Amino acid sequence: MNWNTQFADRTALSRRSAVRELLKLTAQPDMISFAGGLPAPELFPVEAIKAAANEVLTEIGGPALQYGETEGVGALRDWVAAQFSRARFTVRRENVVIVSGAQQGLDLLGRVLLNDGDLVAVENPTYLALLGAWRPLGMRFLPVPSDAEGMDVDALEALLAQRPKLVYTIPTFQNPQGTSMSLARRIKLAGLLGAGRVALLEDNPYGELRYSGEALPHLFELTAQAGADGRLQSPVIYSGTFSKVLAPGMRIGWLVADEAVIDKVVMLKQSADLHTSTLNQYITLALLRDGVIERQLPRLRAAYRERRDTMLTGMERHFPDGVTWTRPDGGLFLMVTLPARMDAADVLKRAIAEHVAFVPGEDFHLQGGANTFRLNFSNAQPERIAHGIERLGALLHRMV
Amino acid sequence: MNWNTQFADRTALSRRSAVRELLKLTAQPDMISFAGGLPAPELFPVEAIKAAANEVLTEIGGPALQYGETEGVGALRDWVAAQFSRARFTVRRENVVIVSGAQQGLDLLGRVLLNDGDLVAVENPTYLALLGAWRPLGMRFLPVPSDAEGMDVDALEALLAQRPKLVYTIPTFQNPQGTSMSLARRIKLAGLLGAGRVALLEDNPYGELRYSGEALPHLFELTAQAGADGRLQSPVIYSGTFSKVLAPGMRIGWLVADEAVIDKVVMLKQSADLHTSTLNQYITLALLRDGVIERQLPRLRAAYRERRDTMLTGMERHFPDGVTWTRPDGGLFLMVTLPARMDAADVLKRAIAEHVAFVPGEDFHLQGGANTFRLNFSNAQPERIAHGIERLGALLHRMV
Repeated sequence: MNWNTQFADRTALSRRSAVRELLKLTAQPDMISFAGGLPAPELFPVEAIKAAANEVLTEIGGPALQYGETEGVGALRDWVAAQFSRARFTVRRENVVIVSGAQQGLDLLGRVLLNDGDLVAVENPTYLALLGAWRPLGMRFLPVPSDAEGMDVDALEALLAQRPKLVYTIPTFQNPQGTSMSLARRIKLAGLLGAGRVALLEDNPYGELRYSGEALPHLFELTAQAGADGRLQSPVIYSGTFSKVLAPGMRIGWLVADEAVIDKVVMLKQSADLHTSTLNQYITLALLRDGVIERQLPRLRAAYRERRDTMLTGMERHFPDGVTWTRPDGGLFLMVTLPARMDAADVLKRAIAEHVAFVPGEDFHLQGGANTFRLNFSNAQPERIAHGIERLGALLHRMV
Repeated sequence: MNWNTQFADRTALSRRSAVRELLKLTAQPDMISFAGGLPAPELFPVEAIKAAANEVLTEIGGPALQYGETEGVGALRDWVAAQFSRARFTVRRENVVIVSGAQQGLDLLGRVLLNDGDLVAVENPTYLALLGAWRPLGMRFLPVPSDAEGMDVDALEALLAQRPKLVYTIPTFQNPQGTSMSLARRIKLAGLLGAGRVALLEDNPYGELRYSGEALPHLFELTAQAGADGRLQSPVIYSGTFSKVLAPGMRIGWLVADEAVIDKVVMLKQSADLHTSTLNQYITLALLRDGVIERQLPRLRAAYRERRDTMLTGMERHFPDGVTWTRPDGGLFLMVTLPARMDAADVLKRAIAEHVAFVPGEDFHLQGGANTFRLNFSNAQPERIAHGIERLGALLHRMV
């Protein structure tokens, strides 16, 4: 059987993610890796998860290991719903589906919403694995410029003439830039959404990881309202995850949206994986009830703030003139821009020889970006960050 | 935002699974449910899983909760590879991908293999959630008759003139019929596969649950071979799961196939959910190393054999003439055929009023089947099975 002739045409639209493949390359212990987007495993609440697993298996037992409803464990959906409710509107269990990591939510939504040829407006650059997940659907991306204040909403408004079906954005501590959409732009964008001019998927994996600056409202909370029948009406679909605040290995995320959207997502999820791990949903619920997130967040913010500051300080000191970078208030990433004539992939080859790694920015872009690269600051101790940035700075001095 | 006008055309090809929706209906405690396909939660190795979770979190700690490779945990892939290797050929880690339950493997394979309009030959009837997962791809199913000896391989051979891209079969203890493909048919089918006439997906979730009769070889082992370069060459893709032998709530399954197939599946899985829960993979690995499956299998077989026998004995005693049923050697299900003029959906309505539930067979069929229904015997104690079958028999006596 020659399997190479057997694959569906759409598989030709798939590409391997450069990030995932690089993770393998950079796993050597002597490599200082700013590639990948891993949270720090030494900060995971391992003892709390061990206690929660023990509690769940002792108190719930068999049912915590049984098949479950596709929508997710009811009490976990209720917890999410309560987090997102406001005085002006109520999010109900029916507005929430638990997914097998936020990535699954993105994959399911693409399949539920997008026809061949549909347009989706995204920041340029944006999350690589969203591009990868949706490209095989035959849809097209419409790049919207993005700067230190996030997506350029005026530019987006002009692009609405092309009638995109959806806007996808990570408004807070964006991957790969680490930048956030300003309050003024959020309010203007909420106006476009509220006027029914377009729908939006708000992806917010990093929002809780703020190290400086003031908290900003979700696009979801700016636009959701109660319908005449009391049901949630929202032009925004919100994607969240416990991966960055608890641990990614449990693969628990969620979507919040109008019931009509949740209903279609659930129907597809049933075919995609029946349901998300019952055991991990119950463990997560036990962690939430025990207040583990509230205890984790100050620890995570303090540790990641120090790592971000170490990286930014090192860059100020060691990076040559002509190289610029973002200064994020939170999240896991920042983005470096080299002089326009330079190619970050060339820099990476030489950096790896010096045992420093990062991800070139081109794959995150729909246009340009060959002279950019992404640095992750969450998964190395400050002294290693300082050391790696110094080496990288020395290399850049030789190359710029 | 009127979301109802926003969905992709393919969502119209999705239907809610009757089984999953019925699970909710029949969850009332006074219902004797032969619907669903749940293993018995009182038989799950809860204490062993608790010990394994504790061991994994103590000995591995943070890395067991971190993001992982899309392909799955290497040692778990190696375990699967070793199970499937034979003297004639070696299955390597590269031939295995860990998936988030066997259902995910089916979803990913459909997307990797099938173009709009492609034909897939399946037993009539077959697994409902395979039909549901693949229909939105715009492919078409080619029904192959199936009897007490499984798929009619002569009928399949005749249908090969229509050039199906793939055959999908559950050769052992099929869902919904409980029947198995005979050795003679397996050998004939292996000949068709070996001659390169068609490729096949062998779905084997129930194979270890044999209560009577002799073990039969997988289609995979009958057809796989070592290529000139020593790599596995197989016209069969094998889908397996720990859901029925350990516990389904961990959502751990696997695919075994040629590297070219695994490669494409991994690329798509990266977009679909990044990877399967690291924690659950490590827990599963610890259970395998501790010999838990070997200890579970005799317990499961003894308990399910008693339940099957109780059901069959009750049917002999209480079901009226004109009603026939399969007599499976294993698995979780058997199938009942009513006189041709009867509709199982009508029977279900009256059965629910008497607090007995089952799944009508029509949705499992591509043709006919309105006079059939599926009974599950794994998830009720023998006395409840006896009671439920007696009630159902009394109802059938009034209706036939």
